Amino acid sequence: MLQAPSASYVYVDATVPLGGVTTVWETDPPVSVERVASLEAGDSCNITHISFSVHAGTHLDAPCHFLPEGSAVEQLPLEVLCGPAYVLNLETVTGAVEPANLEGVPENCKRLVLRTANTSRALMRSPEFTRDYAHLSPDAAQWIASRGIRLVGIDYLSVERFGPPEPMVHRTLLRAGIIPVEGLDLTDVEPGWWELICLPLRITGSDGSPVRAVFRRPAG
Amino acid sequence: MLQAPSASYVYVDATVPLGGVTTVWETDPPVSVERVASLEAGDSCNITHISFSVHAGTHLDAPCHFLPEGSAVEQLPLEVLCGPAYVLNLETVTGAVEPANLEGVPENCKRLVLRTANTSRALMRSPEFTRDYAHLSPDAAQWIASRGIRLVGIDYLSVERFGPPEPMVHRTLLRAGIIPVEGLDLTDVEPGWWELICLPLRITGSDGSPVRAVFRRPAG
Repeated sequence: MLQAPSASYVYVDATVPLGGVTTVWETDPPVSVERVASLEAGDSCNITHISFSVHAGTHLDAPCHFLPEGSAVEQLPLEVLCGPAYVLNLETVTGAVEPANLEGVPENCKRLVLRTANTSRALMRSPEFTRDYAHLSPDAAQWIASRGIRLVGIDYLSVERFGPPEPMVHRTLLRAGIIPVEGLDLTDVEPGWWELICLPLRITGSDGSPVRAVFRRPAG
Repeated sequence: MLQAPSASYVYVDATVPLGGVTTVWETDPPVSVERVASLEAGDSCNITHISFSVHAGTHLDAPCHFLPEGSAVEQLPLEVLCGPAYVLNLETVTGAVEPANLEGVPENCKRLVLRTANTSRALMRSPEFTRDYAHLSPDAAQWIASRGIRLVGIDYLSVERFGPPEPMVHRTLLRAGIIPVEGLDLTDVEPGWWELICLPLRITGSDGSPVRAVFRRPAG
C-alpha cells in the first residue's frame, strides 16, 4: 500500500505559460486570459476566463486531429502519458530529424523527447511563429513507429515540417497509436532519462489539449 | 538514475469531462468546446477551440482567487500537486464537514481528499448546479491548516458552503498555503492511500485552473 510521506523529487517544468505571449500556430488566434471579476473592482473574488485553440503552446495531439476515424483526446491512455522518458540530445539539428539521428535512442525507450536546435534558438519563448524549425522526417516517423515507442515529444509546435503536401508524419505516428507532444520548452531539461508527466485536459471529443508537461527525477 | 521500463500502475480518473454538460458554478458560463476546422468539411485537419471559466468542472484555486495579495496559479509548487493523498470516507456527510469528522485523517497526511455524500449523490455528474452540497466548516478549515496539510480535495465545486457572509474557508486555506482542489468525481476512488497527480495549466496570472486529476496505485 502506498504511504505518505512521499519520495522527494526535483521537478523541471517544460510548459510554456498560457497568456498573451504564448507561441501559437500562425493560423491560430492568440491565447486569451481575461479577468472577468476582480477584488480590486469590488467583486467578491477574482475570476478568470480563458479561450484558445487546443493546439496553442505546450499541447498534445489526439488521433482525430488528422485521422477521420481517430479517437479523441479523452480516450488517450493515462499510463502512456506518465512514465519514464528519454530526452535525446539533437541540439545540432535545425531541420529534418532523420533515422540516422535516432541511433542513440535506448532499446527500451517508450517515450522519446527530441531536444533539437529549437531549444537553443528559444523558439518556444518567442511569441513570433516561425516556419523554420526542427521536425521529424517521414522516415524518422516510420522508424519511431517501428520501435514500439508510444509518445514522442518535440520542442516546437509541430512534429512535422511546415506545410507538407500530405501530413505523413502525423498520420504515421497517429496511426501507430503514438502520442505527439508539441511545444515543449526543454531549456532546463538535460538529455537522459526522466519521469515525464504530461496529462491533457479531459475535453470531450477534442483533437488535442493543452498539457502541463513536467519532468522529474528523485532528489539527491 | 531513472530507467525504463516503468512500474505498472492502476489509474482512476477523477476528472469530469469538459464540454457542454460540465458542472459549473451558477454564475459561470457553460464550457464551450467548438470545432473550428474539420476534415469532414474539407479542412486539412480537425481543430478545436475551447473557452471557459478556470473554475469550471474539476479545477483548483490559486491564492489570488480570494486574497488580494495572493499568488497566481503558475506559482503553485509542483511537488505539492503530485504525491501521496489520503481519501477520507465521509459518505454520510451531506452538509458541513466539522473537525469531529476529520479524526480519521492519518498524522502524516499532506494531501487530504474528502469523499462525501456529494459522490453518492453524483453531483459532479449532473450539469445542474446545486447550492446544497457537502463542504468544509470554518472550524474544519482551521483544523486542516493546523495539521500542516498542503492540499485539500472535495467532490463538488467549492470547499465552502454556498453564499457565506465572508469566504472564511477559502481565506483560511489559501492564507495557510493550502491548495483547494474542487469538482473531483470520486465515484471510482475508494477511500485510503493513493498517489494523486493534479497539475494545473500554466495560465499567466490566473486565479485558478482546470486540472486533470488522476489517482494511481502500483498494479497487483
